[in-house]
Amino acid sequence: MELLKQRIQEEGKVLNDQVLKVDSFLNHQVDPLLMMEIGEAFRERFKHEGITKIVTLESSGISPSVTAGLAMGVKVIFARKRKSLTLTDGLATSKVYSFTKEEWSEISLSSEFLSPDDRVLIIDDFLANGQAGLGLIDIVEQTGAQVAGIGIVIEKGFQSGREILQSKGVRVESLARVQSLQNGRVTFYKETGVHA
Amino acid sequence: MELLKQRIQEEGKVLNDQVLKVDSFLNHQVDPLLMMEIGEAFRERFKHEGITKIVTLESSGISPSVTAGLAMGVKVIFARKRKSLTLTDGLATSKVYSFTKEEWSEISLSSEFLSPDDRVLIIDDFLANGQAGLGLIDIVEQTGAQVAGIGIVIEKGFQSGREILQSKGVRVESLARVQSLQNGRVTFYKETGVHA
Repeated sequence: MELLKQRIQEEGKVLNDQVLKVDSFLNHQVDPLLMMEIGEAFRERFKHEGITKIVTLESSGISPSVTAGLAMGVKVIFARKRKSLTLTDGLATSKVYSFTKEEWSEISLSSEFLSPDDRVLIIDDFLANGQAGLGLIDIVEQTGAQVAGIGIVIEKGFQSGREILQSKGVRVESLARVQSLQNGRVTFYKETGVHA
Repeated sequence: MELLKQRIQEEGKVLNDQVLKVDSFLNHQVDPLLMMEIGEAFRERFKHEGITKIVTLESSGISPSVTAGLAMGVKVIFARKRKSLTLTDGLATSKVYSFTKEEWSEISLSSEFLSPDDRVLIIDDFLANGQAGLGLIDIVEQTGAQVAGIGIVIEKGFQSGREILQSKGVRVESLARVQSLQNGRVTFYKETGVHA
């Protein structure tokens, strides 16, 4: 997605070889118009998958998921990172390790909102080591629903997330695939055929 | 906002006299089409305020803020509930007590995204005791920006939040004002003139 890559080049901050900060349009400040373009891009890529629900993880996954939900006309469920006091019955839960925060957290989702008839698109802001994606696949499958694909806004292609998620038999689509953050510069993979 | 009140009546769960659970369209599962109507309603109520930015609090405030941002053509900043490892410089912070969770948390916002020229609309999903709103006003004002108003999706009008926020001189607009949750039923205030 060219517009997204441009914004990453213009506004992304490369903190080191591993960390790309995009707080000005995705992770802290959100540009709703860019998010709408992102939502449309997800709709285009998954239009033949019969998606009935979107599942994401709070908080940074919510914005692109809501715009994808608008574009596709389906509801969005955001998994929570810890149990809240008003969310207790019928929870699907999984443990997820964050390499960025160096901690385990429990993610959970009310299974009442998914059924075996659902074909779920999982959306997340970043793909790095694939741990959040694995946890999301786990809780969706606990409800009996089917994971139809994973849509990622920015993939750090030099980390192992894609292989890990694809090894689960899940289709992975990224709107921007970063090849390297070396020398303070963002380079992307060529896109030819990636989303054929 | 009649459509919102209908959804609250149809899908809201009254857990007790104090707690209304709307997990099926706002706080866990999100209905993007309803969120877009909510975004348009905020645009209509604040159209003469010259809003340049929206500020909200993760996570449940993000969906209605992104659709309001779409409707109004302005960017959205979601304040974080604790410091993240990649968010360190130039933070405005405030402490907020949650009566629901019975705990203090620190909320923070990168001051680089607001300037004294900004007129900020604060949006949140619920208004109860006004503590989150006070914290959001605090961090916005720390950046020198001006709070032009507070937009609330659901106000629990039998709690003190509105008085607390109005005592700061801030205009408060709620799309649904709950008068009572007694006897397991949701009743709303009459809307006449409320958003004149």
